[in-house]
Amino acid sequence: MATKLKINGQRLNDTLQSTCTSWGALAAHSTGMCRLTLSQEDKEARDWMVAECKSLGCEVKIDQMGNIFAIRPGTAKDNKPIAMGSHMDTQPAGGRYDGILGVQAALEVLRTLHENKITTYCPIALIDWTNEEGARFPGAMMASGVWSTKSSTGLEACWDIQDKEGILMKGALEDIGYLGQTKCDYRENGLECHFELHIEQGPILEKEGKSVGVVTAVQGMKWFAVRVTGEEGHSGTTPMPSRSDALVTASRLITTVRDTALKTELGVATVGVIKSDTSSQATIPAGVEFIIDIRCSTDPMVDQLAAAIFKAFDNIVSEEANSTSYAIQRTWGLPESIFHPNCIEAVRASALQSVSEDQVMDMKSRAGHDSAWTSRVVPTSMIFVPSREGISHNPDEYTSPEHCSLGAQVLLDSVLHYDEKVKEGTY
Amino acid sequence: MATKLKINGQRLNDTLQSTCTSWGALAAHSTGMCRLTLSQEDKEARDWMVAECKSLGCEVKIDQMGNIFAIRPGTAKDNKPIAMGSHMDTQPAGGRYDGILGVQAALEVLRTLHENKITTYCPIALIDWTNEEGARFPGAMMASGVWSTKSSTGLEACWDIQDKEGILMKGALEDIGYLGQTKCDYRENGLECHFELHIEQGPILEKEGKSVGVVTAVQGMKWFAVRVTGEEGHSGTTPMPSRSDALVTASRLITTVRDTALKTELGVATVGVIKSDTSSQATIPAGVEFIIDIRCSTDPMVDQLAAAIFKAFDNIVSEEANSTSYAIQRTWGLPESIFHPNCIEAVRASALQSVSEDQVMDMKSRAGHDSAWTSRVVPTSMIFVPSREGISHNPDEYTSPEHCSLGAQVLLDSVLHYDEKVKEGTY
Repeated sequence: MATKLKINGQRLNDTLQSTCTSWGALAAHSTGMCRLTLSQEDKEARDWMVAECKSLGCEVKIDQMGNIFAIRPGTAKDNKPIAMGSHMDTQPAGGRYDGILGVQAALEVLRTLHENKITTYCPIALIDWTNEEGARFPGAMMASGVWSTKSSTGLEACWDIQDKEGILMKGALEDIGYLGQTKCDYRENGLECHFELHIEQGPILEKEGKSVGVVTAVQGMKWFAVRVTGEEGHSGTTPMPSRSDALVTASRLITTVRDTALKTELGVATVGVIKSDTSSQATIPAGVEFIIDIRCSTDPMVDQLAAAIFKAFDNIVSEEANSTSYAIQRTWGLPESIFHPNCIEAVRASALQSVSEDQVMDMKSRAGHDSAWTSRVVPTSMIFVPSREGISHNPDEYTSPEHCSLGAQVLLDSVLHYDEKVKEGTY
Repeated sequence: MATKLKINGQRLNDTLQSTCTSWGALAAHSTGMCRLTLSQEDKEARDWMVAECKSLGCEVKIDQMGNIFAIRPGTAKDNKPIAMGSHMDTQPAGGRYDGILGVQAALEVLRTLHENKITTYCPIALIDWTNEEGARFPGAMMASGVWSTKSSTGLEACWDIQDKEGILMKGALEDIGYLGQTKCDYRENGLECHFELHIEQGPILEKEGKSVGVVTAVQGMKWFAVRVTGEEGHSGTTPMPSRSDALVTASRLITTVRDTALKTELGVATVGVIKSDTSSQATIPAGVEFIIDIRCSTDPMVDQLAAAIFKAFDNIVSEEANSTSYAIQRTWGLPESIFHPNCIEAVRASALQSVSEDQVMDMKSRAGHDSAWTSRVVPTSMIFVPSREGISHNPDEYTSPEHCSLGAQVLLDSVLHYDEKVKEGTY
């Protein structure tokens, strides 16, 4: 057997840190990131990544949602690329690892293949999925959803989504030069399979003392936009008992979201966004909107937790002398995603090439990922590496250089494993 | 005795409605208004008002805060003007009467004096106070506060206040051509006294079956900006028990503000503004700010209610497994304002010239007004007319044409009463 092909951990980590410093760093002396999708920072990171991939001999395609497909040719005539995808956008106050590690590790894999003059059977693709975070244009995992054709929000609907400044997504794509011609549709721009290296973003690997998570599924999740309606009034002249204060009711409902999730132990429920129609301290708020994010390990549990929360809402609103009402305006969701046995096997076998069995565990992802969408149309799995203290979506997010390198190595080996099996005709 | 001088009620009401339709109407078929201070709509209403006053022979001065003083000369050499002041700006979803009635009634008084060729002893001034609402640039009754020199927020500090778009108040004054040269200081641009006609904005006159309120004081009020600090985390991966969710804590605190005001019956307490640092539904909020508005009939009651609320806050934060903290960032306030006996007498005597004694009542204002600031440096009182169902800061705000006219008549008579007393040397 030939010497095992090794990624260059130093190069991976140096590139990850230096590109984060260049494009989207929140402040000096912090590793916080604000690289909102399709921003100037995102454009510069994308331009750099495209140039790097071209210098490694890749053909680069940009699709209608700005997804970047950098494809290194293989010898097979008819096979589609084995993909390594993730995202380079971040939360407004996020870290350097969520998403970014997956794309940088994919680049490191391409660099390793290139410098070792490896020819694969299938083409190998690096993918940067647009707007995974949904932080600028609401709707997480947006562009992989469009590509999968399984999201309820299709291409045109996504193009029409506005950011807080009223900029349309389509306009933002044009502005940074990433409104591509390639169809954003897996049937026209397909993949053999999809692997994604990602940080866990939770505490489990660290707590269990493991280095690699073999991800077998993504938990189900649903979002509900709730609007509470009351009646405006003057804060000085409207007596307390006759008020219909939408913010007071919304506050009781938000408290109940948390309490119900804690009590039922079915999963997690979060209100991350709140917006009041009123911007005056002297006016009783008449309209308040918030979004509930519910995630459980199975879809029936998501529905059960949602039902428990809305039952508690009904109790509060009927008890409440406040005489407000609430309506659920919209729901989105991402059903539980079961990953493909072949991809899971490729990740597990690859992990065991680098670390001993007691360092590896199967797990479900509690966060949504682009892989949740790709898994609906092509074989998919993910590789998790530990997050310090489980912290993510936070400038303190951290994964050690050793774990970053290990993840990239497992990603390389998973791709090669899968490629070998396709060549053999096993997968 | 000469025939009693009468204002023209039809003209007043027509002018009020047509100017509201022209500048700041919220939508067709609604009487809602959005005439934010120093906006284009406000500029156009101001320009029109200045032109009207000039056509009536007034000299117009604009001060450093954009306050408009339109002064009709009197015969006295050394007396300052008897003022009729209020404001023409509105809440983002306000009505046509709050403030606007007071300025339009003052115009109607000037028109009546002009067409009847009345010469007063003192000069008579119409004043449009800038940014009474504090809805665009935070800080209600801002410009009368500067003029009184008694507000803790002085001229330069007000100029530096930003709106939500980041526009500085000074820039906004310049943009619409209302950054005047006249000193915004009662010692340099003084008044003999200040009368203000205003809608009650509460339910008391209507409930008591009265037509005119003789306002003897403005209740005390304080505002507190509260910031709750938690820790950001991913909404999918952070277990419920280990969260530090600032919005959940803020929700509990906001609920308690209402509950404490209801229970203690000391006054009213409102949270009208809430803001979360986070704009992502997938992130546990780490920073939430809100403003508490507390108003009671006396200053000690304001302090008592504030103390009760903050004691309840401490209990919640110490009980809360959530491990968030809160801080009171800033406080502003307007102490109880006691109006001047001479002005109160002028209003009462004038009301009784138009309606019978059982239609008139003394009352305290539960809302803040520019008169609260003027009362600190010149004799001041206010005239209240009924608000339908007590509704204000709301497009449904309504005062009947008859009550608007009655208020304007009482304003005219109060000014003439005061002028006569000054001429006699009694006041």
